[in-house]
Amino acid sequence: MPDPAAAVTDENQRPGGLLEIDEAVTGDLATLLAEDARGMVLNLVADLYPADLALLLSRLETEQGQKLLTWLDPARGAEALPELDHDYRTQLLADLPATRLTVLVDALDTDDAADVLADLPEMLAVRVLPRLDDADDLNELLGYGEETAGGIMAAEYVAVPATWSVADVTEEVRRVARMVEEVYSVFVIGEGRVLEGVVSLKKLLLSPAERSIAEIMERDFISVTTNVDQEEAAQVMERYDLVSMPVLDGDGHLVGRITIDDVVDVIRSEAEEDMQLMSGVSGDESPMTSLLKVSRGRLPWLVIGLAGAGLSGLVIGGFEESLEQAVVLATFIPIVTAMGGNAAVQSAAITVQGITSGELWTGDALARVGREAVVAACNGLVLAGLLCSAVAVLGVAHAGPLALTLGLTMLFVVMLASANGALIPFGLQALGIDPASAIGPFVTTLNDILGLTVYFLIASLFYL
Amino acid sequence: MPDPAAAVTDENQRPGGLLEIDEAVTGDLATLLAEDARGMVLNLVADLYPADLALLLSRLETEQGQKLLTWLDPARGAEALPELDHDYRTQLLADLPATRLTVLVDALDTDDAADVLADLPEMLAVRVLPRLDDADDLNELLGYGEETAGGIMAAEYVAVPATWSVADVTEEVRRVARMVEEVYSVFVIGEGRVLEGVVSLKKLLLSPAERSIAEIMERDFISVTTNVDQEEAAQVMERYDLVSMPVLDGDGHLVGRITIDDVVDVIRSEAEEDMQLMSGVSGDESPMTSLLKVSRGRLPWLVIGLAGAGLSGLVIGGFEESLEQAVVLATFIPIVTAMGGNAAVQSAAITVQGITSGELWTGDALARVGREAVVAACNGLVLAGLLCSAVAVLGVAHAGPLALTLGLTMLFVVMLASANGALIPFGLQALGIDPASAIGPFVTTLNDILGLTVYFLIASLFYL
Repeated sequence: MPDPAAAVTDENQRPGGLLEIDEAVTGDLATLLAEDARGMVLNLVADLYPADLALLLSRLETEQGQKLLTWLDPARGAEALPELDHDYRTQLLADLPATRLTVLVDALDTDDAADVLADLPEMLAVRVLPRLDDADDLNELLGYGEETAGGIMAAEYVAVPATWSVADVTEEVRRVARMVEEVYSVFVIGEGRVLEGVVSLKKLLLSPAERSIAEIMERDFISVTTNVDQEEAAQVMERYDLVSMPVLDGDGHLVGRITIDDVVDVIRSEAEEDMQLMSGVSGDESPMTSLLKVSRGRLPWLVIGLAGAGLSGLVIGGFEESLEQAVVLATFIPIVTAMGGNAAVQSAAITVQGITSGELWTGDALARVGREAVVAACNGLVLAGLLCSAVAVLGVAHAGPLALTLGLTMLFVVMLASANGALIPFGLQALGIDPASAIGPFVTTLNDILGLTVYFLIASLFYL
Repeated sequence: MPDPAAAVTDENQRPGGLLEIDEAVTGDLATLLAEDARGMVLNLVADLYPADLALLLSRLETEQGQKLLTWLDPARGAEALPELDHDYRTQLLADLPATRLTVLVDALDTDDAADVLADLPEMLAVRVLPRLDDADDLNELLGYGEETAGGIMAAEYVAVPATWSVADVTEEVRRVARMVEEVYSVFVIGEGRVLEGVVSLKKLLLSPAERSIAEIMERDFISVTTNVDQEEAAQVMERYDLVSMPVLDGDGHLVGRITIDDVVDVIRSEAEEDMQLMSGVSGDESPMTSLLKVSRGRLPWLVIGLAGAGLSGLVIGGFEESLEQAVVLATFIPIVTAMGGNAAVQSAAITVQGITSGELWTGDALARVGREAVVAACNGLVLAGLLCSAVAVLGVAHAGPLALTLGLTMLFVVMLASANGALIPFGLQALGIDPASAIGPFVTTLNDILGLTVYFLIASLFYL
């Protein structure tokens, strides 16, 4: 049997000198953990970056992950925690001895520590919290809504009085260097921690030591308040290309800062949430979620879908007599529903993106519908033409009226569906609902009902 | 008539002191531009951040935008360009005098300048390029694929020899401070620009002036090569929480750097691309794209959808005799297709996210399908129960066999669809196709065909 520790060192080197975490490496690690080969395990993970260590942890059985987590130096183990999937992390930490848990959480930045604590079973969190060094800061952070600027900000930052010199400030940065790992800028505060200005690290580096910090600070800074939605905070930082942004309370007092890595996480998770909304999955499902929770999360959407489809069925049922006279009409039901659904989703997707990115405003709704109608008319005509040709080629009985029915239906359905797709996201936005919900089950169901009604009405006029 | 310039100053102040760009402000600006009130216009836009200026520009008619762009100080106008929608930017710049265009592009960072040039009509780009200060750098940048690390990197960075002292390096940062606006770290290079280490700005600030830079540099840095896909480069920076990452050529020579704002843009645009793929819209459509291009981009997806729906229709046509005997079966066609589609998309969405985020590997495909089958069995049973109850309540003729048919169909269809949804993304990934393509038209069409076949086969067995 080849030596697992040796196997992972040659082939799995990535160009940057990083160990590629793949199935072979995790398999080897699991074997070594099972054999209690502590020295080899620690050697294997010694040079891993936190994100890679987290990936390894997430691929292990919970018990083996816990074993690894107790073997590791607490600072190293803690680094990996923010990178783990929430569900898995809670599972991993819930059975750990409280003392170990305390050490791990203490090694985290306050924003990550608050995150971990919020996910733990309350009994456990309540026991761990008072023992932590940053208990006060954490208590405050835990008071903010999870999806607000207050909820994603950290209490670690560098703040100095406006009277200090550049040399004083540099000395302060040195003093807190270990506590505040990523320093992008220094906040200048007045009485009662009211934020007065911001100095970038570059500016600090390039300014003479005796200069007063008040002279070089930027007074025209961008900030948010704690209650702002995390998505909006992320958009502000993205929009103005900030790497660090102060967070103030309602009275302008500095209470924390958000850094760009948090924003990247927010953008990623909001994009995932949109994708889940579009697909009828509850927003917090991940590949690691327990089966029961998955089933419970998806079922409501399916039931809503069933109800909607039931209405489509009632439309068909209402035209049962027409169908009895010409069963061939049933053949085209999937075409009517699919084309309406596709056209609506296309038009909704672009509208949602425009709204989300701020390119489209509520006042643009009508212009948007107009544009979509023109596109839909073009595409509807092409589709109608294709369907009519198909009918001609297939040589069905009463080909003329059937072709006329299908052609007109296609044109109307695609136009109606596109208009819906363009309009509904604006409506949802106005109601305070995420416009991404418009793509997927809701729009398609509505268009099935409308499309089938149009289809059978036209068929009644021309075909029967 | 109220004075437009006054109107925008009171109500539209956002908390951060920023002017809120909304319909009122753009309307006022358009009026002032039309009246050639240059002083008032420049006053109105004087304190705007680049992103806000870009938003204003994008809401103006092209000619008015061009007017504003020629009135503005070139440096200010240039700042707004990277924030504009590509299509609109090209439109805006294409008619500008070549000298003005040269000045604007010269004021941009090389990565943004390359972006602008790549979008311009080739005739114009070829005329502007040789006149630019950074013509050589730009020629090189334009040679890299648009969606690679080389394509998004900038040629502006601070690089110093390993022999320099901290004081020398600080002096160098000062020297290039105007050219390299965002300095997060300094690159230490050896012979032939081979990258030897990286020094963060914080480290530089905190190190004694006489220390050699080689002593304080981090030798274990993360980098990518120019040919790496932009999405992968973004993932590396996101994964390892980097704000700036060196880009090397094949031989380890430093050629550029990627900064976190570029990564945020990549994450955003990849998320938008996924949403578009899921919705059957060609990847580069935006709300500003011309109608003809929109129609051309969407039509192929609709035609593919039509072909797929046509196959579903053929399945129904194949069971025309069964339908003639019991037209009531047609009523449930939308339910069968909608439920299969919904279940498949739910299961595909989670699988796609797992693959994209690196949580799921190819070896997990079977386990994934197993999980989905269990969830689908639970949900399928509930849906089957609901449908059977509905049939019982409605009191149709032959309620027993119909309920049996519908119940069994629901269970099979949801299970089949969920398995497809879980499996197809892995298949696409293996074929090198973006797994997000699995959600939307493709999966739903396949499940319509499968679902209807199952439905009519079961109906033939039990109902007729």
